[in-house]
Amino acid sequence: MTVVAEIAVRFRDHDSFGHVNNAVYATYCEQARVEYFESVLDVPLPELDIVVAHLELDYRAPIEGIGTVEVEVEAGEPGGKSFPLFYELSYEGDVVATGKTIQVAMDESGTPTRVPDSWREAIANQSE
Amino acid sequence: MTVVAEIAVRFRDHDSFGHVNNAVYATYCEQARVEYFESVLDVPLPELDIVVAHLELDYRAPIEGIGTVEVEVEAGEPGGKSFPLFYELSYEGDVVATGKTIQVAMDESGTPTRVPDSWREAIANQSE
Amino acid sequence: MTVVAEIAVRFRDHDSFGHVNNAVYATYCEQARVEYFESVLDVPLPELDIVVAHLELDYRAPIEGIGTVEVEVEAGEPGGKSFPLFYELSYEGDVVATGKTIQVAMDESGTPTRVPDSWREAIANQSE
Amino acid sequence: MTVVAEIAVRFRDHDSFGHVNNAVYATYCEQARVEYFESVLDVPLPELDIVVAHLELDYRAPIEGIGTVEVEVEAGEPGGKSFPLFYELSYEGDVVATGKTIQVAMDESGTPTRVPDSWREAIANQSE
Repeated sequence: MTVVAEIAVRFRDHDSFGHVNNAVYATYCEQARVEYFESVLDVPLPELDIVVAHLELDYRAPIEGIGTVEVEVEAGEPGGKSFPLFYELSYEGDVVATGKTIQVAMDESGTPTRVPDSWREAIANQSE
Repeated sequence: MTVVAEIAVRFRDHDSFGHVNNAVYATYCEQARVEYFESVLDVPLPELDIVVAHLELDYRAPIEGIGTVEVEVEAGEPGGKSFPLFYELSYEGDVVATGKTIQVAMDESGTPTRVPDSWREAIANQSE
Repeated sequence: MTVVAEIAVRFRDHDSFGHVNNAVYATYCEQARVEYFESVLDVPLPELDIVVAHLELDYRAPIEGIGTVEVEVEAGEPGGKSFPLFYELSYEGDVVATGKTIQVAMDESGTPTRVPDSWREAIANQSE
Repeated sequence: MTVVAEIAVRFRDHDSFGHVNNAVYATYCEQARVEYFESVLDVPLPELDIVVAHLELDYRAPIEGIGTVEVEVEAGEPGGKSFPLFYELSYEGDVVATGKTIQVAMDESGTPTRVPDSWREAIANQSE
């Protein structure tokens, strides 16, 4: 199952060039990621033990209004202690950016740990 | 010449995990980039015709206090219409992240254009 | 007519105390204000010639989750060149803050000017 | 003793009108407040048990560049469980805004409590 988060652009997201600032796209991905963790992995935010180790974004078009951005999130194949998430951001029907993050699972002491089996199963099921 | 921007961490940069939010690193790079454009390329912000086409960040360690982040910026070899910038973010003597952005030069009509010769010269001189 | 803006709390809105940062309430009011200008005063954002001269917020309760904040906006009696907006912010059925801003109408040269009659009429009609 | 916090304006602080967004002034006050708590009240951030109950800001002039804002902070007479802080924000030698917040002291259970004597003494000494 793919998650599509709907995110309302705020006036504050724009910068002095009059479009959404490039760093804010990372916040949109984060917001979609939180929804993914809750709805697919069934992990509420306060119990979330992950660290974002890598972020990348490719910008295709500016976001000039304050409408709704749709962020589609899908997980890739987990490795031992980490797994990737892929993002596609659309605005008014057009893809405006794509992105990727790599998350590392952490145990309670803050040490990287094996991605839990429950997450692996949920991620495997998403693609069915 | 490499630019090192000193950026004071704000309380507002932290998220509920008690360290600097990962999207804020993109803002630190942006701030350093603006300094780079002013001091190396001699382009003040209001006249700046570039678009960020790509961003990537590798996170190595959390930033837990509200001290000063040093962002070292260096340009790579320009292509036709774009050139890369590389970032190294340090906090209290330790490298906490590295990053890269690709900028596209734009003409007044908003169309990608050849990176100006003055920028090419300034970038070439930085490495001497 | 009173405007009620529905604003989705973002993870990024929280600070290290685990609730929405107090400055972000000002952003919620701003977002509701933009909706008010568009839907009541029929002024789209790019043509909006106002300056916020005063802001005040009274905080009653923290916002601890990432649900939806409802911001009710109502205008008060315009003066010569300015008029007030009043805000009531609710979260999960409870009032979490109230606020007020004073806006000054500006002409094209950036000088304070008389609040337009069309705005006065729209504001007068809202209370009917 | 009055605290003067020096805050570097970031490009991201600007909005699409090309000057510092009005909500960001609240963040500047917050940053100065954190410095005040550390240097005058000797309370480091992680141990800080206060709640901001009220915020007000009067805007006098826009901040159009990305230079340094100086925020002067001074405490007023404490009441039983709360005390006010007053702010004066300057940019390039001109006062651009004044502000006020009211802080409530909290005990470990999150209940309002009497402002500690050590704070009262430090606040009294500031005016000497």
